[in-house]
Amino acid sequence: MGISLTKVGIIGATGYTGLELLRCLLYHPEVEVTIATSRQFVGKKVSALFPFLKEYNNLILSPLDPDRIAKQTDIVFTALPHQVSMEVVSFFIKKGKKVIDLSADFRLKDPTVYEAWYGPHKAKELLALAVYGLPEIYSKKIRGATLVANPGCYPTTAILALAPFLSKGVIELNNIIIDAKSGVSGAGRGAKLATHFCEVNENIEAYKMCIHRHTPEIEQELTQLAGEEVKVIFVPHLIPISRGMFTTVYTRLIKPITSETAHTLMADYYRNKPFIELLPPETAPKTIYVRGTNICQLGVKVDRKSQSMVIMAAIDNLAKGASTQAIQNMNLMLDFPEEMGLKTLSVFP
Amino acid sequence: MGISLTKVGIIGATGYTGLELLRCLLYHPEVEVTIATSRQFVGKKVSALFPFLKEYNNLILSPLDPDRIAKQTDIVFTALPHQVSMEVVSFFIKKGKKVIDLSADFRLKDPTVYEAWYGPHKAKELLALAVYGLPEIYSKKIRGATLVANPGCYPTTAILALAPFLSKGVIELNNIIIDAKSGVSGAGRGAKLATHFCEVNENIEAYKMCIHRHTPEIEQELTQLAGEEVKVIFVPHLIPISRGMFTTVYTRLIKPITSETAHTLMADYYRNKPFIELLPPETAPKTIYVRGTNICQLGVKVDRKSQSMVIMAAIDNLAKGASTQAIQNMNLMLDFPEEMGLKTLSVFP
Amino acid sequence: MGISLTKVGIIGATGYTGLELLRCLLYHPEVEVTIATSRQFVGKKVSALFPFLKEYNNLILSPLDPDRIAKQTDIVFTALPHQVSMEVVSFFIKKGKKVIDLSADFRLKDPTVYEAWYGPHKAKELLALAVYGLPEIYSKKIRGATLVANPGCYPTTAILALAPFLSKGVIELNNIIIDAKSGVSGAGRGAKLATHFCEVNENIEAYKMCIHRHTPEIEQELTQLAGEEVKVIFVPHLIPISRGMFTTVYTRLIKPITSETAHTLMADYYRNKPFIELLPPETAPKTIYVRGTNICQLGVKVDRKSQSMVIMAAIDNLAKGASTQAIQNMNLMLDFPEEMGLKTLSVFP
Amino acid sequence: MGISLTKVGIIGATGYTGLELLRCLLYHPEVEVTIATSRQFVGKKVSALFPFLKEYNNLILSPLDPDRIAKQTDIVFTALPHQVSMEVVSFFIKKGKKVIDLSADFRLKDPTVYEAWYGPHKAKELLALAVYGLPEIYSKKIRGATLVANPGCYPTTAILALAPFLSKGVIELNNIIIDAKSGVSGAGRGAKLATHFCEVNENIEAYKMCIHRHTPEIEQELTQLAGEEVKVIFVPHLIPISRGMFTTVYTRLIKPITSETAHTLMADYYRNKPFIELLPPETAPKTIYVRGTNICQLGVKVDRKSQSMVIMAAIDNLAKGASTQAIQNMNLMLDFPEEMGLKTLSVFP
Repeated sequence: MGISLTKVGIIGATGYTGLELLRCLLYHPEVEVTIATSRQFVGKKVSALFPFLKEYNNLILSPLDPDRIAKQTDIVFTALPHQVSMEVVSFFIKKGKKVIDLSADFRLKDPTVYEAWYGPHKAKELLALAVYGLPEIYSKKIRGATLVANPGCYPTTAILALAPFLSKGVIELNNIIIDAKSGVSGAGRGAKLATHFCEVNENIEAYKMCIHRHTPEIEQELTQLAGEEVKVIFVPHLIPISRGMFTTVYTRLIKPITSETAHTLMADYYRNKPFIELLPPETAPKTIYVRGTNICQLGVKVDRKSQSMVIMAAIDNLAKGASTQAIQNMNLMLDFPEEMGLKTLSVFP
Repeated sequence: MGISLTKVGIIGATGYTGLELLRCLLYHPEVEVTIATSRQFVGKKVSALFPFLKEYNNLILSPLDPDRIAKQTDIVFTALPHQVSMEVVSFFIKKGKKVIDLSADFRLKDPTVYEAWYGPHKAKELLALAVYGLPEIYSKKIRGATLVANPGCYPTTAILALAPFLSKGVIELNNIIIDAKSGVSGAGRGAKLATHFCEVNENIEAYKMCIHRHTPEIEQELTQLAGEEVKVIFVPHLIPISRGMFTTVYTRLIKPITSETAHTLMADYYRNKPFIELLPPETAPKTIYVRGTNICQLGVKVDRKSQSMVIMAAIDNLAKGASTQAIQNMNLMLDFPEEMGLKTLSVFP
Repeated sequence: MGISLTKVGIIGATGYTGLELLRCLLYHPEVEVTIATSRQFVGKKVSALFPFLKEYNNLILSPLDPDRIAKQTDIVFTALPHQVSMEVVSFFIKKGKKVIDLSADFRLKDPTVYEAWYGPHKAKELLALAVYGLPEIYSKKIRGATLVANPGCYPTTAILALAPFLSKGVIELNNIIIDAKSGVSGAGRGAKLATHFCEVNENIEAYKMCIHRHTPEIEQELTQLAGEEVKVIFVPHLIPISRGMFTTVYTRLIKPITSETAHTLMADYYRNKPFIELLPPETAPKTIYVRGTNICQLGVKVDRKSQSMVIMAAIDNLAKGASTQAIQNMNLMLDFPEEMGLKTLSVFP
Repeated sequence: MGISLTKVGIIGATGYTGLELLRCLLYHPEVEVTIATSRQFVGKKVSALFPFLKEYNNLILSPLDPDRIAKQTDIVFTALPHQVSMEVVSFFIKKGKKVIDLSADFRLKDPTVYEAWYGPHKAKELLALAVYGLPEIYSKKIRGATLVANPGCYPTTAILALAPFLSKGVIELNNIIIDAKSGVSGAGRGAKLATHFCEVNENIEAYKMCIHRHTPEIEQELTQLAGEEVKVIFVPHLIPISRGMFTTVYTRLIKPITSETAHTLMADYYRNKPFIELLPPETAPKTIYVRGTNICQLGVKVDRKSQSMVIMAAIDNLAKGASTQAIQNMNLMLDFPEEMGLKTLSVFP
């Protein structure tokens, strides 16, 4: 890799989102990963720990030494737990680095909301700076951003499903239900009983019904787009697949439209958005078609009888729901073409 | 098996619901399976085709010869496709047999509704006779029934989740959303691309959004229980597990109640119902806990902020969603104890 | 449960083998579980932690207090890690209890072999007392035993596959290859990266090739049965299913026999063994047919061209490979019928 | 795509190997797919049937019209069933096309062997022309080939595992055991009971023990490499994953070597082979690390006690086991760099 490549640091490289960043950045022709940190595996070669990343045969996992990292990188991805991320991000911003934060720490604009759901915030001064990194909606702001708060996986699906309808006077804004189904990698790579193969396999269950931390993030963004307060019912479910998220959104129509009209509204809204794959009216997405990619598949069905509209979104929770979306944000921040390095295809079956 | 055992016939014994009937009837001390039919495997021993059913080492699969079957059985389970079932059921009823029909042919009271969703009905005269076989609600009628229409798997979960609330003036009856997730065995044992391992595995998808044939069945029963017309939005999803169904029902509250109050309403409604397992308030069921059993796990969560209530139901789609529920109906019809032969435990993990 | 029931204690009740003991003992008409211990969950109700065990609504998890347990039980199952088990077992034996130990601590007769593979042995004086608990082979000794060392899951399959041939001069005894494939529950319920759903799912791998600790156990028993030293090559593999073990044993024939002759040798050897399910010649077992049961399915195929014989065994690693085999041992030790409480059927599919 | 791209035809594009060819050829900068045939879906757009292949929005599935195809292509992949393929291949060869045949029809040099295992051969005159397409071994011959017989998935693993040792006098050549475990996609995309999700899921089984049709292919190639007759015991197993094959090969050593020496022999043999990923001595491969890639991971372990050597190989059965290996062959035949278009990474987890 040449001297002119942009130098990228990954803080927290051995969790699933960190590994996915490492994997996907290998397809990017304009960047090189110069730093990858880990608490657990300091000193180990990435390629030795993860044979599928054998291209990184010179990258050694290092401790989180912010000064050194600041010197050796142009842009930093932080893939740390919430609460841990904020101080690290703060340091890099002060050092003049561009940062894409994959934690929840800079997604919520209102610190009191953040503190109600997550705990104390120690870098409130950065909240105004942070741009919510959903490129299909905020690409202009992201282009100029220093700090991008990369969206949560559930919010990515819910917002992309609903955005085309929020300011159109089409749906009731106080009557939105979001039923989401997620693969297990969304729970992270840490060993815990809840992700033990035998506890998850051959099972379906809901969890954190109406109290999942992605709720305020979804509501903030929907409210922003609608121009008036939106509240949602959000129930996530755990499904025994490794990667994939399928979100089914239920809305009530204010004015009678058809599936075709709904489809047209979506097609217009997402015109020229390369990672939105809008399916024909009344067609359901499949997570298997987007696995390992930055694509969000969308489908819509109007039930005229009940004047309801069902919008469906499928993504790979680790990719469009985290790491490839972060790379899409990086492309915008660094003035690279939006699709650069992100045109891989799903491995089917 | 002694001469005094009740003689049971299974019509369509080699599909998944037929096999589940064979398996579960082995635990029943008062019946013996004297006839099991198959189109594909006539003349083969059940125990040779299905080694896990080795106890049936004298049962040979026979063709559907109604006269012979009528002579050799006291009660008949029909596990045939809809449209095929109606004529077979009609014959056995005329011969004076009790019949439990696992198809959809006798579930809908109104033949015009049936014909709109399924096709021509050739045994309309039996519709008035047929009792909808959901024992937690209709046990009295089932006890006296000659013909029981065994419920669909999706309706079983939806109705059991909603029944405690329908006549209480608690929820809006025109604003009910049913998001259901089913394992693959619900699609039957026939070989088709849609159930090919590689097409289903590692995938989540919705199908037949708002147009699934179980919709009118759900609406009929909810309307019956509510005493006024109920319409629902029903979206099923396919999940890569063999057995299991998890249904999430979203309702809007008319009067503000708590999760505890909702729980109490459910506990009262299902008092002394041995196969209802009501979990503590705000606890989600797990399909893995009911696999292979006749149990329906129920949970409820009220979101006070939005005055919504989420009710969750988990069953085994082949068991409580089909075959063990049919055996529960048989127990009622034959005056056996309701739990007889049905007290098996889920194999976890 | 009546006063005359045999009182059973389970030491280590919340791992997978402990839970499987709890589940399966519910089907046993002559025993009651009076004690179940746990380090992590002392004071919790079994039925609250594990809703599928709701029948145990009066059983509270207790600490490992040997004196109290000795008073309240007639027989004890120890389901503890190796090295931890030996002292606990020793205590109960001294108190005059019968013990079935599911750890490896009393399986190896020669303490030097044990210490080479596992670590120091602190209860060597009990080794002579311990009977290797493979009931298809040692039922007489087990009937009189005070201490039964319940076999490992891999040895159960390997020994049952090979036993009919070892003393017959049929196969080369220094040329036996055991290729075993196990489901994930064999790794226990502890949370570790190696059993994380996403690390196991959609993967096949070998592990501990030729150095797995079950090797000396297999060799001890085969040597015992052959009457001369037997050495094996044993390679286990991890497969993404919850329960199930499939072992393929490769042998070289000394004298030319057919699949049918091999089958006859097996049939003769296992005559009247209720849990051996010998399939027709040249038929492969399926783990799905034995899931949740105490059955070992066996199949055999001779390849005349190469004068080799392939023997296949399928079990449920938690059941016949651990807990139901322990109950079978209990039945023998307590003079109950061998099949008592163990006649459950696999839940297929 | 420009006028100078090499024109590729895919005969049988909608099976799993055909789809994998379509997917992977999109990464190739020097070719374009101009023809894709299908019996079932003639006239349909590839991108409409398979949304993950949306880049093919101008490719319409066509019937197998050999004359037209010959005009519009430079090279043809035939992904048809054996027996069907031979005549199609024959036609294209006569038309002067280069052909890579993914069926078994041209793999066996001796037509009597072919006819014993598969049925009549109608294009025997081409057998001498056909080159066995295992590039790690036959790259020179493949470069000049007109017709390449792409290897079977099982033979690919078995031959790559054994090749480094066959002519070295290291192992006994009449005592080789191949125990292979395959994902379900190897059974093809046709709907049949044997690949129904519920029949495969949570199951492990062997099939076609010692009589699988890949046996003579393996033996032919091993014999060729050894310079003397080699016979093997080959037992395949079906594992519930979509993609992946893990093969464990058991050999007896003639002279005592260590794992390190064995590793060195392999490293020397595969020096500069870009798709061989040799792991450190005594390390097992994982199929999850090669999913969707052309890589074969190899590992080796010597058991000195028994003078045995275990060699392990992991591939993606649809990729290195079929379609990406076919593209690797194409690269050699067309004088493209061997790795062109094949440097994708496994999607982990």
